[in-house]
Amino acid sequence: MLQLLNDEYYMQLAIQLAQGATGQTGINPVVGCVLVKDGRIIGMGAHLKRGTPHAEIHALDMAGADAAGSTAYVTLEPCSHYGATPPCSDRLVRERVKRVVVSCTDPNPLVAGTGIAKLRQHSVEVSVGLLAEHALRLNEVFNHFILTRRPFVTLKTASTLDGKIASRTGDSRWITSGEARQFVHTLRHQHQAIMVGVDTVLADDPQLTTRLDVPALHPIRVIADSRLRLSTGARVVTEPCAETIVLTTAEASQAKRAELEAAGVTVLDCGPGPRVNLTKAMELLGQRDIASILLEGGGQLNGAMLEARLINKMVLFYAPKIIGGGAKAPDNFQFGGFERMNDAIRLERTELQQFGDDICITGYPHYRNEV
Amino acid sequence: MLQLLNDEYYMQLAIQLAQGATGQTGINPVVGCVLVKDGRIIGMGAHLKRGTPHAEIHALDMAGADAAGSTAYVTLEPCSHYGATPPCSDRLVRERVKRVVVSCTDPNPLVAGTGIAKLRQHSVEVSVGLLAEHALRLNEVFNHFILTRRPFVTLKTASTLDGKIASRTGDSRWITSGEARQFVHTLRHQHQAIMVGVDTVLADDPQLTTRLDVPALHPIRVIADSRLRLSTGARVVTEPCAETIVLTTAEASQAKRAELEAAGVTVLDCGPGPRVNLTKAMELLGQRDIASILLEGGGQLNGAMLEARLINKMVLFYAPKIIGGGAKAPDNFQFGGFERMNDAIRLERTELQQFGDDICITGYPHYRNEV
Repeated sequence: MLQLLNDEYYMQLAIQLAQGATGQTGINPVVGCVLVKDGRIIGMGAHLKRGTPHAEIHALDMAGADAAGSTAYVTLEPCSHYGATPPCSDRLVRERVKRVVVSCTDPNPLVAGTGIAKLRQHSVEVSVGLLAEHALRLNEVFNHFILTRRPFVTLKTASTLDGKIASRTGDSRWITSGEARQFVHTLRHQHQAIMVGVDTVLADDPQLTTRLDVPALHPIRVIADSRLRLSTGARVVTEPCAETIVLTTAEASQAKRAELEAAGVTVLDCGPGPRVNLTKAMELLGQRDIASILLEGGGQLNGAMLEARLINKMVLFYAPKIIGGGAKAPDNFQFGGFERMNDAIRLERTELQQFGDDICITGYPHYRNEV
Repeated sequence: MLQLLNDEYYMQLAIQLAQGATGQTGINPVVGCVLVKDGRIIGMGAHLKRGTPHAEIHALDMAGADAAGSTAYVTLEPCSHYGATPPCSDRLVRERVKRVVVSCTDPNPLVAGTGIAKLRQHSVEVSVGLLAEHALRLNEVFNHFILTRRPFVTLKTASTLDGKIASRTGDSRWITSGEARQFVHTLRHQHQAIMVGVDTVLADDPQLTTRLDVPALHPIRVIADSRLRLSTGARVVTEPCAETIVLTTAEASQAKRAELEAAGVTVLDCGPGPRVNLTKAMELLGQRDIASILLEGGGQLNGAMLEARLINKMVLFYAPKIIGGGAKAPDNFQFGGFERMNDAIRLERTELQQFGDDICITGYPHYRNEV
């Protein structure tokens, strides 16, 4: 595709740099930066890991003394405060960068605009808003977490075209193709935690790890288990590649809890019971600096999370198949449901993608009475 | 989009001409023809209605004496026999067309190749197969009917993302947006008949007509009604814009049958009962020169037609909504289903399209043990 060389060209590249780092910055945003001078790129950077340099710093380091008089394209407003690293806006001023093109401001109301103000105070030319919609979406996790301190939950399902996640006998291997399943492993890499119900663990004894042709990050494993039915022999307990957190209730057996904790599992009390209070669970996980969760639940957990309005995004795979089986074959979302079609939970900003024969629909649920 | 001027350029146009006439040629194929000479188009044509001239004739008439020495691009092999009109291959020879580019041969084994052979006998240069896949799909209805004498059935549904066609209380107005529903009316125009179950008529009293911003063709209305519960006061009976055919069984009341017939309805016996024999029904409709049916059934009729392997194509709309309701909310396909996910009925050659927020998946079911 022919692309015009202009501000967008470079911001696009900065966004791509940021996007590549999705999943590896923890609760930090992903950010990209491109430095340009006299018609050529002289530096590029992305924030790669929480506690390490920001995108601007990497790009400035790459440019060296050449940075003076350059234009910086940054996907997110440069920071103006001391965190794990010194403020980027100070460094941009010091290196005498001439112009800074910012895609979006920091959504954190405590920060928003201060980085830009500092640059302008030092006579750096700043423009804001280029490809902002794209840059905002890039950090949908960060934007949500910074304001709510709860993880951004992305639900993933694989269904047939009649909305089933298994046949009437429970068979679900496989619904989608290998191509779609590889993509799910990419999603695991891009999320800090993966969440399932204990029934899934009891039925399939999954590893819940990220398995791809290249090395990847394993998410923290979160199991919703109101009555602590998880066995210490389960692979999520015995295979130590990632932390395992069990969400349970005060009602659950204290002996079983001690047994799981002795096996290295973190157990969190989420309300008095009998069911896990999912809202409470999200708060506790947020306190543990888990900013993103990939929910790979069955129909029951999906339905409960949806009713609790805790799902922020959906990635719905559909295999081009019809399995039938009526009530005996489980639906992808099992819950009481609505009387009127008009009250159904709508997905907004939907997008389509094809993986082999399979179809992927992504979107953002809009809950009623939301602003 | 930049398009290279070559044989494909003209065949593409011929295909578009044919495509425009979809739905108005009855059991005849849609065919387009473009005549080109000395770098310019000198004639264009499409077959517009059964019993009227074929595409080549319209294009040759437009070109007049200029046709000598031209190249004809035709989406389907020119005919070589006397039907309602004289053979097109004779006319092409007579007008001294120099070269004929044919996309696909006539699938009717009694015809296939004879038109081409006749042209070659008269030293017309013929090449075959350009964009053949596209041209074949254009006539999927004709290709099916000419070989089976049964209508090509296209199923259309509108479902939520959990595979439901109504809420647990039966509410289904509306699932998809106005944009998608307008497209359904276009599908009605493009099919000779529309088919529903009597329950749909009893519940909604629909007109089953084509309502668009431009005048369009109304399909024949086919109602599956094993026990003749259809009322003579129903709009499909009282509104005479299209023929109405009721499919029933020998068990049904003869008195009710006489009453419906007196109201102008055609009643067809499809087996002894208690349910309509759907295979028999398709045979009877085929005998009445109905080559295409748009099936707008509920979950039960969809499931039964699928089990009988009578659905040739599916056009599945999904609104980006989740309604819930479990077994109380009807599935888009209600039937016993399969034990194993691997046995599910697969759609092949799937395509995706977005209509506003809604998603449309089209595909062709592949039934097990089919060649």
